[in-house]
Amino acid sequence: VKTLNVNLKDHRYPIVVGKGILADSGKYLDKQGFHTAPIVISNPTVMRLHGATLIQSLQSVYGNISVIKIGDGERYKNHATLMKIYDGMFRVQANRRSWILAFGGGVVGDIAGFAAATFMRGIPYVMIPTTLLSQVDSSIGGKVAVNVIQGKNLVGAFYQPSAVLSDSEVLSTLPKRELASGLHEVIKCGAICSSPLLRYLEQKLPEILKCQTKELEHIVLAAARIKADVVAVDEKETGLRLILNFGHTVGHAFEAAGDFRKFKHGEAVAWGMIAVLEYSREVGLLQAEEAARLIQLIRRVGPLPSISGISLESIWKALMHDKKFRKGDIRMVLLQSLGKAAIYNGIEAASLRSFLRRFIAGSHAFA
Amino acid sequence: VKTLNVNLKDHRYPIVVGKGILADSGKYLDKQGFHTAPIVISNPTVMRLHGATLIQSLQSVYGNISVIKIGDGERYKNHATLMKIYDGMFRVQANRRSWILAFGGGVVGDIAGFAAATFMRGIPYVMIPTTLLSQVDSSIGGKVAVNVIQGKNLVGAFYQPSAVLSDSEVLSTLPKRELASGLHEVIKCGAICSSPLLRYLEQKLPEILKCQTKELEHIVLAAARIKADVVAVDEKETGLRLILNFGHTVGHAFEAAGDFRKFKHGEAVAWGMIAVLEYSREVGLLQAEEAARLIQLIRRVGPLPSISGISLESIWKALMHDKKFRKGDIRMVLLQSLGKAAIYNGIEAASLRSFLRRFIAGSHAFA
Repeated sequence: VKTLNVNLKDHRYPIVVGKGILADSGKYLDKQGFHTAPIVISNPTVMRLHGATLIQSLQSVYGNISVIKIGDGERYKNHATLMKIYDGMFRVQANRRSWILAFGGGVVGDIAGFAAATFMRGIPYVMIPTTLLSQVDSSIGGKVAVNVIQGKNLVGAFYQPSAVLSDSEVLSTLPKRELASGLHEVIKCGAICSSPLLRYLEQKLPEILKCQTKELEHIVLAAARIKADVVAVDEKETGLRLILNFGHTVGHAFEAAGDFRKFKHGEAVAWGMIAVLEYSREVGLLQAEEAARLIQLIRRVGPLPSISGISLESIWKALMHDKKFRKGDIRMVLLQSLGKAAIYNGIEAASLRSFLRRFIAGSHAFA
Repeated sequence: VKTLNVNLKDHRYPIVVGKGILADSGKYLDKQGFHTAPIVISNPTVMRLHGATLIQSLQSVYGNISVIKIGDGERYKNHATLMKIYDGMFRVQANRRSWILAFGGGVVGDIAGFAAATFMRGIPYVMIPTTLLSQVDSSIGGKVAVNVIQGKNLVGAFYQPSAVLSDSEVLSTLPKRELASGLHEVIKCGAICSSPLLRYLEQKLPEILKCQTKELEHIVLAAARIKADVVAVDEKETGLRLILNFGHTVGHAFEAAGDFRKFKHGEAVAWGMIAVLEYSREVGLLQAEEAARLIQLIRRVGPLPSISGISLESIWKALMHDKKFRKGDIRMVLLQSLGKAAIYNGIEAASLRSFLRRFIAGSHAFA
């Protein structure tokens, strides 16, 4: 079990990565100063697969444990579910000294974190992320949110957890497509900050795809370290943190254009990265061989749903609604070399649009 | 026009108090660095009385101004209204660089502040409080919230405004009962921190009740200074800030027992203060003459709705639900002398309950 610390300006918390931490979570949390029982927020799928391990560990320390289950899937990350969580909390007489344990993937973490941020003006929460994507990305950095009809994550907060416990063993129950989706976020971390991580991925991809714990632990730690370091510098995403959005601006647009059903988040990010790599190459920023090398790694992770049927209009509309998009002054994270990202302002709308038209038309080359 | 600063650990903002600041708000805000038009959140009553002054001032600097109107009254401070605010913001294409101007009393400030705290994970907001209560209390300190069916302010955040502009002139349109309600919060500030403010109130109450601007300015500044200083020491209400709850624990219970209709907030606080003064005297903490003197000041402000019809059970139930109430270990703010409050833990439930029974039965003495 390895611990890395997220050092924010006025908050510091541990990310614990390792095999078997789930079964030890009760003892660990008690040692971390959580001496009363948490309110667990999870979903039926996660509870069926790993609930017994968690609850047993918590019960041995805290006695009876309350669990609030929410629907499994992004479409449940909304205010209706949030109200159900609040209701459930009141039902078990939660108060200002209660705390939440978010046990699940990104949806559970985001909405449980936002419930923690807002219940009685904020109570502590701990994350036990159960997907690769949430272990390397959404559980770190304190971005919590719900979706509204106008878009994803448009209502939320920056609210940091008190601890994150990532057990690599739980990842073995992930569907292949889910694991691949998370891997694309790991690739992103390497692409923007760490060519050693990219090399590791290139070498160990077969072991990783077979869920070998040692290799999973290595990449979870490496990606979490990168994200934690970036977040420590720029908690509220006013500068450096934007580089974590590499592939995400265009990726989100694909995700929205596919109605959040066609693509998993990581798959959309994969397409977003491929597009931005191509764009970075086209504008002469990135060498062709480097772009090709990273695109190859992305493609080795697994097949991506096709984007050839997606209309340019729907992508463009989604881009124009992106909350990170400055109107008239398009800002994107581009790659200068493998492991080195930079934020570019003033990208011309017409040229980006023309690029995207050509990219979609030629996307079969990357399928 | 006088300015006092709220100095928080990593945020500092001005409270500007003075006659005519509303008509100058556009220029002032532009000078403070707000160079784009705000989204104004207000209600029909405030807009009818003072909307023209505000909008004219803003338009002269920013051009066209978007206004989102919400229902007037505490019963609108809920998630349904919050969703309407978000919708209105999306309709005018609000983004991360938008900012909110909350123009109204406590309800507008609380819900507009919570919308600002959560819209795209937080955008800036400025308060122009239009009631005495909101000028001296709810606009200061960054407590924002909405009500849920389980109780008031149970979902919210600590989220500080960028500036507060308090125009004493707008107070002249307040209904008498509304003004009196705000005065009770001013008395509370004096009671816990400042005997000079209490003496000023005793001397100038007639002028204040006639809405004379000079006297209103004096008490708004004095009360705002007290609250700002307390909040600067304890932003998240973990210690000292609790003294601001003098009269509020019991007051909230009266408010809830009256179904939030019978009493205005300040009236309930007035009853709460009278009860706690009596209790402080009864337990031998506060001298009888001092208790009597403060009760007399409270009563001079105006008539209070009777509490004699309120059942002890409904009050006790509300007390037990108070988010500041520790179960089994009752904590209350008591008065040691006029201008000096202290937090007491370990108040015995049975003795408090017995006191409240007698207090309600004998309440006609304070009517």
